[in-house]
Amino acid sequence: MLKNFDVDKYLNGGKETYAQRQNIEALADELAQKDYDNVVMVGIGGTWMEWYPVAMYLRRLSNFPVYLENAAEFVLSKDKPYLSQKSLVLTASASGTTKEILEAVKYCNRKDIDVYGFTKDETTPLDKLLKKSIYNPMGDCEDSYLMYFMLTLRIYEQWGHFKEYKRWADQMAVLHENLLRFRNEFEPRGEIIAQKYHDAPLTMIVGSGMLWGETALFSMCILEEMQWVRTRPVTSAEFFHGALELVDNTLPVFLVKGEDEYRPLDERVERFAKQHTDKFEVFDTKDFVFNGIDDDFRQICSPMIVTAILTERLAALYELNTGHSLDFRRYYRQFDY
Amino acid sequence: MLKNFDVDKYLNGGKETYAQRQNIEALADELAQKDYDNVVMVGIGGTWMEWYPVAMYLRRLSNFPVYLENAAEFVLSKDKPYLSQKSLVLTASASGTTKEILEAVKYCNRKDIDVYGFTKDETTPLDKLLKKSIYNPMGDCEDSYLMYFMLTLRIYEQWGHFKEYKRWADQMAVLHENLLRFRNEFEPRGEIIAQKYHDAPLTMIVGSGMLWGETALFSMCILEEMQWVRTRPVTSAEFFHGALELVDNTLPVFLVKGEDEYRPLDERVERFAKQHTDKFEVFDTKDFVFNGIDDDFRQICSPMIVTAILTERLAALYELNTGHSLDFRRYYRQFDY
Repeated sequence: MLKNFDVDKYLNGGKETYAQRQNIEALADELAQKDYDNVVMVGIGGTWMEWYPVAMYLRRLSNFPVYLENAAEFVLSKDKPYLSQKSLVLTASASGTTKEILEAVKYCNRKDIDVYGFTKDETTPLDKLLKKSIYNPMGDCEDSYLMYFMLTLRIYEQWGHFKEYKRWADQMAVLHENLLRFRNEFEPRGEIIAQKYHDAPLTMIVGSGMLWGETALFSMCILEEMQWVRTRPVTSAEFFHGALELVDNTLPVFLVKGEDEYRPLDERVERFAKQHTDKFEVFDTKDFVFNGIDDDFRQICSPMIVTAILTERLAALYELNTGHSLDFRRYYRQFDY
Repeated sequence: MLKNFDVDKYLNGGKETYAQRQNIEALADELAQKDYDNVVMVGIGGTWMEWYPVAMYLRRLSNFPVYLENAAEFVLSKDKPYLSQKSLVLTASASGTTKEILEAVKYCNRKDIDVYGFTKDETTPLDKLLKKSIYNPMGDCEDSYLMYFMLTLRIYEQWGHFKEYKRWADQMAVLHENLLRFRNEFEPRGEIIAQKYHDAPLTMIVGSGMLWGETALFSMCILEEMQWVRTRPVTSAEFFHGALELVDNTLPVFLVKGEDEYRPLDERVERFAKQHTDKFEVFDTKDFVFNGIDDDFRQICSPMIVTAILTERLAALYELNTGHSLDFRRYYRQFDY
């Protein structure tokens, strides 16, 4: 049913990720013993965007300072006096070769700050720089979210900020089968959307809150980088201060509609865009109903829904229409700049 | 020489703004006496972007927590436990009618948190909600920057974080004549640029650090909102994680090049873009030399340079080419949404 998708490989990959739970919890329990002043997540591009909802969610659970930093800016920055040996620094790079991430970890190491993170395996350059690593090929973004949340929420459980950890982590065993079903539910609509919009001269992509990271990721890492499709990512709040004036029937608008407190901002975009362009698509995470995962975990899981239906499925369906391989880059990682 | 520009009105406006120094310092001195836990700047659209370099600069001067919040998100947010009656909340709206700003101030007032800010005069709805206001028509963004920096840097002087306040504030008396000269220096180049790019299907606009706010403001508030010109604003760091793949001779790229620690990121964009599009323009604040303002204040003043040459001059020159009035909106503030 799903085009260019290997169901067995996906479900096995999910099992492998979930099997890291033991290693992740062991690391979390070790880290939770230490005395930290703040948590610092360092990413770039897609990785920054994947840490985004994690940072946001932790800030809801506690007053404990949580920083999310762009790796390229992080090493140059003059306004981060909070960074010290009492910072818990986390990062990730699946390939383990992302230049800015390696620089950021070296930067911390020069200051005697330990960095912990996620990478493919023990052979990567990143692994050599990290104090401790969790290994996983991390093929899909949902696996990254699962692991990042597992590590940080377990630490927050130990610190007394997230009592629901065990119930949540137990339920994550059925995450991938739910996300597979959502893919199937979305597929017919995705086929129509990809056909209709793949050659639009510009697509505006709007989202907010817990979904902003994944919205930007789909826009930048998939459409721009992997499909050379022009996009204008904008938050639901900012949309009304500039971007709205561009909207008419020549501009497709994609709204990623979330389930957190910013939903009213998404709804405002929806009311507006419905009236001013006939090329308007809403991707509402509420339309996807989990089996075996409690409703109070929907906010944590909502970026995973978006990654399943847009960043994975819609990307694959765009590829079938554009003929542009998702694997082909002309510039990124092709030479030095 | 300058098209659609009234020199006398501009210089008089600058004098009026500077004349607020006394009122601003009196307010600053009063606020500096109080015991605050943090500074919170609340803006939306252009106002958020104008507070951006102010927040960044204050974070360099001290460890004291400084938050910059989007007004629409601020009132809905569940992850801002830092907000209390010990927060120094600052905002601004020239018209004094910006819906989200009014809501944000009401939200604070309901929590018994005083808000201070800037608005046109004592007749505006915002003025009625603020604890104390500074009045100014604030026609140009440089006036906003000047007043926001004056208020906050004076407070930081009193708190022992910015010893250079008096020297800086004294020198700001010649700010507007410098910015007028920069306009004249830029005008011939601006005419060529506006003619060449005003009808581009999409323009990518790149900037970083202290200039990111003004870069985004030019992109969103001028080109998108006031000219209906499609843009893709992106930071110099993020540029290499998605946006770069779009670059070729069909895509103009504008780089706003700054003078802070992120300049190497701008330079990386420059090296790359030069080789991959013949529609590349660099706006380097270093090319504009102040008379009577010391070099160690260039970072504070660099957003003012950008606003003079791009947000004001290039906007006016685009208007002459597009024929699209800078004053005309089809949606914004035209009806409810």
